[in-house]
Order: sequence, then C-alpha cells, then structure tokens
Amino acid sequence: MRSSSVTLRDVARAAQVHPGTVSRALNAETRGLVNQETAERVIRAAEELGYRPNPIARGLKTNRSFTVGVLLPDITNPLFPPIVRGIEDRLGAAGYTSLIANTDNDPDRERQDFEAMRARQVDGFITATARLDRDFVTETAGLSEPIVLVNRRLEDESLPAVTVDDREGARLAVEHVVALGHRRVAHLGGPQALSTGHQRYLGFVAAMEAAGVEVDARTTRFAHAFTEAAGARACRELLDAAPDVTAIVAANDLLALGCYDVLAERGLRCPDDVSVVGFNDMPFADRFDPPLTTVRIPHREIGSAAADLLLERLGEAEGSAAPQIRLSPTFVARGSTAPPR
Amino acid sequence: MRSSSVTLRDVARAAQVHPGTVSRALNAETRGLVNQETAERVIRAAEELGYRPNPIARGLKTNRSFTVGVLLPDITNPLFPPIVRGIEDRLGAAGYTSLIANTDNDPDRERQDFEAMRARQVDGFITATARLDRDFVTETAGLSEPIVLVNRRLEDESLPAVTVDDREGARLAVEHVVALGHRRVAHLGGPQALSTGHQRYLGFVAAMEAAGVEVDARTTRFAHAFTEAAGARACRELLDAAPDVTAIVAANDLLALGCYDVLAERGLRCPDDVSVVGFNDMPFADRFDPPLTTVRIPHREIGSAAADLLLERLGEAEGSAAPQIRLSPTFVARGSTAPPR
Repeated sequence: MRSSSVTLRDVARAAQVHPGTVSRALNAETRGLVNQETAERVIRAAEELGYRPNPIARGLKTNRSFTVGVLLPDITNPLFPPIVRGIEDRLGAAGYTSLIANTDNDPDRERQDFEAMRARQVDGFITATARLDRDFVTETAGLSEPIVLVNRRLEDESLPAVTVDDREGARLAVEHVVALGHRRVAHLGGPQALSTGHQRYLGFVAAMEAAGVEVDARTTRFAHAFTEAAGARACRELLDAAPDVTAIVAANDLLALGCYDVLAERGLRCPDDVSVVGFNDMPFADRFDPPLTTVRIPHREIGSAAADLLLERLGEAEGSAAPQIRLSPTFVARGSTAPPR
Repeated sequence: MRSSSVTLRDVARAAQVHPGTVSRALNAETRGLVNQETAERVIRAAEELGYRPNPIARGLKTNRSFTVGVLLPDITNPLFPPIVRGIEDRLGAAGYTSLIANTDNDPDRERQDFEAMRARQVDGFITATARLDRDFVTETAGLSEPIVLVNRRLEDESLPAVTVDDREGARLAVEHVVALGHRRVAHLGGPQALSTGHQRYLGFVAAMEAAGVEVDARTTRFAHAFTEAAGARACRELLDAAPDVTAIVAANDLLALGCYDVLAERGLRCPDDVSVVGFNDMPFADRFDPPLTTVRIPHREIGSAAADLLLERLGEAEGSAAPQIRLSPTFVARGSTAPPR
C-alpha cells in the first residue's frame, strides 16, 4: 500500500546501513561487495517495507570501485592500527574496502601514493598524513575524490576532519601535574607542522597560563618526529637546558617513552625524580614500567567517525560543508606521575 | 648493438626491480602505478641497455589491477603491523598496493573477504588467516588468483608460505628455561587449529623430551585465541592443575601477558616465583614490567618474503611449486625469566 513512497533511505534506516549498501545489496551483480549478513538484513528490510527500486529517483552514482584510499604515516606506529580498524569496520559494513599506504610523513611519497590510488580509481580518501603547509592544501584541492582527514586537521578547516580535542587533552595533562604540586613543568612537543603537535603545544601553553604556572623557552622542546628516538633527543636538550624540571608533559606516548630512556640514562627515576605524561594511551601503555599516565583518545571511534564522514560524502551530492569533528579525550592517571619530592 | 638481445628481465635486474614494474614503468598508461623514482630508474636502465619491448616475447599478463588482497586476523594484534609494513614496502616498490581486511579468524568473515576482494579484481592474495582445517584448503583451491600464506602454513604444504621456524623457536625457549634450572616447565599453547599454535606445541614437546624433562597433561593448556584474555583464562586452569610450575613457555607474547595478569592476581611474582617466556617479540615487549623474555621473529622480513613469493607468482607462468620459507627465530633473554628459587 505505502510501498510506492518507500525510499532507499527508508530501507537503509530500517536495516541500519548506509544507502549505498542498500543499493549494492539489492543488485545481484554487486551483492558480493556487501557482507552476507548485512545483505540479508537489507533484503529483509526491503521486503518488509515493500520497497521498489526507482533508478531515476535514487540519485546514487554507479561505476564505483567501492574502495577507499587510506594514507597513514606508518602502520607500525601503535596509534594507527586501532584507528584503521575503526575505519575498516565501518567501511566494510557499507561494502567498501580500504587500500592502505604508508607515507612516513614524506611529502613526495604522499603525492605518489595519492596518484597511485587515483590510478586504482578509489572513490575517496581518508588520510592521517596532512601537514599544515600550503603544499598539502594545494595538492589535495586538485583531487576530484572526496577526502577526509583523520587525527589531523587544517587550520582553515577547509577539509572535513576527525580528531580528538587536542588542546583539551593537553589541558587535562597540565591540570593533573599542577594538581600534584608541580611548578617546573616542561613540554616535550611534537612536530609543529602537524596539527596534533601544534594544537597540543597551544593547549599546553593556554593551560599553564590558566593555572598561573610559568612557561619559558627553556622548558619547551620540540621533537622533529613522533618517535621514541626523536623524543629522547629532545628530552636530552630539555634536561640540559632546564635540569630543575620535575614534570614533563609529552605530546604523545612515544615521546614519553623517549623520556623514560633519557631519565634512566641520567640515573633519574620516574616518577620519583621526574613525572612524565603521555598522549594517546597507545595499546599496552598500562604494561610499561612505570605504567604510563596519559591522555586517552578513542582510537576506534576516531576511525569510524572518519569513515562515516567519507560515506556521507560518497552517498550524497553535498555542498562544500567540511564538518570538523572533535572527540573528547579522557585522562588516565597511572604510575608515571607523582607529587614532586 | 646488443639491444636486440636485451630482455625485460635484464632491465629489471639493472634497475633492481620486479619485471612487472619494468613493464608498467615503460608504459605511459600504467606509469602512475609505479613510484616516480623507481620509474625514472627503470627508464634510465632501459635507455642505457638499449631495450626494445617485445610484446610477444615478454609473456606478462596485462589487465592487472595491481592490487593485492591482504587478509589478517586483526591489525590491532601488534604482531601484524610490522608484517604488513614489510608486505607493503615490497609490493609498493613493484607498483602494487594492498587491500586489507580483518577477519577476526572468523571463517565466515574470511570467506566474505575473499569474495569481496575478488569482486575488486585483486591480482593475488597474501593471507595470515589460514586454518589447518579442510574447509580453508577446499575454499582456497577454488581461487584462480595466486595465494601466499604469511605466518601460517598448511600441513600438506600445498600453498606457498612464509613463517618463522616455529618449532625451532619453541626449542630456544625450552632450552633457555631448562638451562636456568627449571624442571617444572609448562606450555601455555595457542589454538591448535592454527599452524603457529600447533607447531610451537610440537616444538615444545620435542625440546622437553630432548632435554629429558617430563611433559604431562597437567602442565599443558591451550588458549582458544592468541589474546591476553584467553591466555589469562588458560593460565588460571594451568596453575590450578599444576601449582608447582616454576616456568611457563607461552606460545605468543599476548598469552604471556595474560600470564603476567594471573600471576599478579595470585600474589605470585614474575620471575621470582614463576618465569614466563613469550613468542614474537612484539613491539614494546622490552618496555613491559618485567621486560619480556621472548623468541624474536623477523616481522618485516616475513612480510617482505611473502610479498616476494606473490610477486614471483604474478610475474611468471610458474608450475605448482609451493615454496615453504622458514625464517630463523632468535632468542631475547630479558627480565621475565630467572633461575627457580
């Protein structure tokens, strides 16, 4: 009776899937691209609602490859596997699969990877490799495929992005060490060309000022990469310049591990002599010696939110809206922080 | 002068790339699939050697998608990111990109993933999900694309596979704890339907017999999955059945971490009361409390060797040879093992 007014979107809502998935599940030629269980759910929902496909009205593009290019700095950075898992689970449920490339944050390699993926006719991109420089913006402006940033954002917010609220995370870290009584608090920052590095630094400075604790040039050092080795190098410089520091707020967990190494190297104990806070709550951070106090970010949710943004842009003729999703971080106090002596 | 006798393989050798890469780099339509630097090196080598393509002689298939399906149990298992990185670096240099799927070792999901990837016309598969049961063999026998196993092998060796020598790794672990003086040595095994779980168990039994140390049913327990939770469950059963155990040889690092949890839960100290050995040397195992003594496997090399096997099979009309590559493990003694009290 009401079947003539039932739309593809109604079926999608009833089956709790993306409209594109309905389209594929109801077409025998493309059904293999959808998980069997999902396809069955869609077919059931379409039957129950009495849906009749209307090829003219549904407005969905065809000739899709149903693949999405995912660009990462490095899958062996423990931050990324759970983000990738979040992306893939969401894309998989909608019948998409990801092509993955590791760029090592090298702009040339990133450019090549974008090209190689376009040559494979991906339908869109999710990238965790965005730099804050003009080149990235200029290059990606030339892409006809939709692009979503994950764990990175552009300052002008011209591309849709999903990150944690990096400034808020840095504030949580500063408030924790200040509440413990620390006044000589250093920031071991990340690369300032990456939004995570830059925003966490800005959040650190703002929170220190709000807490009325001095920030000076001696107590801030930036690592050139988010790695243990770069963190160790910056930490050595930091302790040389400001040996009276009692707490270090690091811009990510790998930098914090670099601090662990340098403290051990100098016969200093963590947290007895120097407290260390990380950022990310990477897998197994609770297993470290000492267990790492850190800012927890919802890895899988960041990935699935990025996949959702891309799927929206693939399923609809949308305007230039570039949603900026900032998920809330939480704080996990463990064994690497304590009151100053 | 010699240009007529120069083959595509000569160019490949000179440029140190796969013959398929030469073919793509020299064809303007497919050049975008090869890294720019690699393409330039190939073009230079072809010019220097005076190579003239001979489409009839070169025997390379065209109509490739230059994508490879990579099936993993779960990218968030820390074992896999470095293996994937090894696969992707080698495939990338040859102009291929990987499509990745997480199967959670669920046979239904694995079947769907194989199908979804075939629908995307991948040129071949690398899978870390092989089970030892007949179903897997029967299903993959129907694939027309070449398939290479990574970190898994079939008992009848009917598919090419790259693993570490799992039995040898178990032997290194047993010899280490026996040399420390342990005689009540337990095995916390992995799933016996996976070759890693099965071979490590066989290696444990053989090494214990060779060392003249008793193995009985009470001191062997199998986890149903390679996870911390499954390891903890099996460890509880083990300690209930054999409370006099002084050393546990676990079939992987995550199972060993499950043992850490159960020992702490029961007020036992590692290594003072019970020594624990892992397997894999997962990233950050040296950071754990205590740092984990374990069998180190060459993760990236396993991945790149699997990619090499697949590239060979993609580039050549080869017979049914199914090479079985076993890389050698090494042993890393850290803080989780000590002589028995």
